Amino acid sequence: MTESIAWVAVDWGTSNLRAWGMSEMGAVLASAASDKGMGKLSPQEFPTALGDVLAQLSPSAGRRIEVVVCGMAGARQGWLEAPYLEAPTDLGTLGRGAVHPQVPDGNVIVSILPGVCQRVGGENVMRGEETQLLGLASVVPDYAGLVCMPGTHSKWARLEGTRIVGFTTAMTGELFELLKTHSVLRHSLNGVLDGPGRDDGFQAGARDGLDNPADLLGQLFRVRAAALLSGRSPDWCAGYLSGLLIGTEIAANRNQIGTDPIPLIGSSALCALYARVLAMTGATGRIVDSTEVVLAGLKAARASIA
Amino acid sequence: MTESIAWVAVDWGTSNLRAWGMSEMGAVLASAASDKGMGKLSPQEFPTALGDVLAQLSPSAGRRIEVVVCGMAGARQGWLEAPYLEAPTDLGTLGRGAVHPQVPDGNVIVSILPGVCQRVGGENVMRGEETQLLGLASVVPDYAGLVCMPGTHSKWARLEGTRIVGFTTAMTGELFELLKTHSVLRHSLNGVLDGPGRDDGFQAGARDGLDNPADLLGQLFRVRAAALLSGRSPDWCAGYLSGLLIGTEIAANRNQIGTDPIPLIGSSALCALYARVLAMTGATGRIVDSTEVVLAGLKAARASIA
Repeated sequence: MTESIAWVAVDWGTSNLRAWGMSEMGAVLASAASDKGMGKLSPQEFPTALGDVLAQLSPSAGRRIEVVVCGMAGARQGWLEAPYLEAPTDLGTLGRGAVHPQVPDGNVIVSILPGVCQRVGGENVMRGEETQLLGLASVVPDYAGLVCMPGTHSKWARLEGTRIVGFTTAMTGELFELLKTHSVLRHSLNGVLDGPGRDDGFQAGARDGLDNPADLLGQLFRVRAAALLSGRSPDWCAGYLSGLLIGTEIAANRNQIGTDPIPLIGSSALCALYARVLAMTGATGRIVDSTEVVLAGLKAARASIA
Repeated sequence: MTESIAWVAVDWGTSNLRAWGMSEMGAVLASAASDKGMGKLSPQEFPTALGDVLAQLSPSAGRRIEVVVCGMAGARQGWLEAPYLEAPTDLGTLGRGAVHPQVPDGNVIVSILPGVCQRVGGENVMRGEETQLLGLASVVPDYAGLVCMPGTHSKWARLEGTRIVGFTTAMTGELFELLKTHSVLRHSLNGVLDGPGRDDGFQAGARDGLDNPADLLGQLFRVRAAALLSGRSPDWCAGYLSGLLIGTEIAANRNQIGTDPIPLIGSSALCALYARVLAMTGATGRIVDSTEVVLAGLKAARASIA
C-alpha cells in the first residue's frame, strides 16, 4: 500500500520555495520547487503559486490537506504577516503563532509560521531560520550552545534545547555578491573564479579577516591592490574576498565560540568554508543537513499549531 | 592687460574631469568641467575629450600650451599608463614620472602624473590623491602627520613634508552607495533621506561604529531591524548607515590618530561628517579646500616635469 500525503511542508524564501509532500509519520513522499519566491509575488499571487506546487506533489484529490509554511511568506511584504515571536522564547510553541491565509480550495489549510525578533541586546529579525533551529533541537535534543547559519544573511543563534536565547545577523553573503557584482573589485574578479588560486586566496583572506576584523573597510581594497601590483588572478581575488568576509564574521563572534563543535546549517559548500575558517581558530564546525532540519522543524511546529 | 593662460591643470577622475586655465603665476583664469571621466573613455577618445575642455577654456590660439593631468587618466585602463611611484617616496619629484601621450594639436603638450603604490606594509594604490598631498605640502610646508581624504575610496596617508611615508584605503563611500542602492537595506532607505532624523541616526551609527568596528557585518543589518522593529524613518536609517561606516573607518585608524588636528581633504559636506566623528573620539579634523590643494599640487608637480 502506498502511503498518502498527509501534509505539505513548505520553505518559502525570498527568491524561491521548496515543498515536500509528507506522510503522517514524517517521511518525504514527494518534493517540488519553484522560483516563485516572496520577492516576486504580490499577496494575491501566493495562492496560485502554492497551487502550482501542490499540483506537482499530487496529494489525493478531495482530501483535506494541511500546508505548513516557514520563511518570508510571513513577512510584512509577503502573503500574510505572521507577527514575530520575541527572543528569548521557546520555539517549541512556534506553531501557536501561525497565521492562516485564505485559499480558494477549501480543502487546503495553510499555516504560516512566525519569525523571531529580538528587541533587547541588539535589534534583530529572522524568518525561516527559527524553524531550522527548532528542527535542530528535534534532531539533537540536548544541544545547548551556539549555532551558525551561513548564508546571504548569516545568523548566529544561541540555543538551549528548543529555547532561542538570542541571535545576531551578519550580511556576509550579500556583501560578497554586491562587491563581486557592482564594486570596483569586480574588475579584479572578472574571469575564471574557481581556478587553482582560489584556495590560496581564501586562506590568505581568512587569515587577514581573523587577524584584523576591525579593518574590513581597509582590507577589502587589498583585493584591488593585489590584482594591480602582484597580478593576482580572478580566482585568487575571489577566494581572498570570500575568506576575508568569512574570517571577519567569525572573528566578530569569537568571544562566543567555545570548545564544543558548532552546528553549521546552510548550503554544504558554504558550510565547508566556515568549518575551514573555524578550524583556523582552533574551533570545530559540524555541518548539519539543512533540508533535514527544516523538515524536522516544520514537523515539530505543526504539532503546536492551534 | 588680461593675463593669458600659460598652462592647464586637469584633475581627471573615474567619473568626471575638471580643468583650470592657469596664469604663469598660478592664478585661475578660467575653469571647465566635463562628465567624460576615465571610466567612460577608451584610450583613443581622451584627446577629443581634452580638446572639448580646452575649447571651453579658450587659451590663446596658436600658442604652445602645457596640460598637467593627475588622476585616473594615468591608470592602466586610462589614456596612457603612468607607472606608480613606490611609497615611501618624495612627492617633490612627482613630475619626473609623468608620461606624455600624443595629441593631434602639436601645440598641446600633455603630461600625466603618476600615482603612488605601496608594496611593503600592505599593498595599496592611489591616483590623484598624491597630487593633493603634494599640494597640501605646498600650502602647509611643515606639516608632518596623518592626512584623511574621505571619498568613494578614502585614503589615510602619513606625510612628512613632501614625503609620503605610507597609506591605506577604506572602501567606505563605495560601500555606502552599494548598500543604499542594491542591498536589502535599500528598503529601509527608500524615501526622504535628508529629513530631521538623519542627524540622530548618524550619531547613533557613528557611536556603534566607533565602539565596535570589528562587527561591521553584524551592525549593518541593524539598519533593517531598526526599520522593521522600531519604525525608524528612511532618513534615520540613511544617517545611521553613513555614521556606522564612517565611525568604523575612523576606529580602524584610531591608533594612528594623535592630538594634532588632522587635515581632511574631500567634499566639504563629507569632510564635515568626518570632523564630527573625529570629535567624538576627542580628535580634531581640519577641513582643507580640496580644489586649492589639487591646484597647488599640479602647480608643484609641473615644476618637476622633465
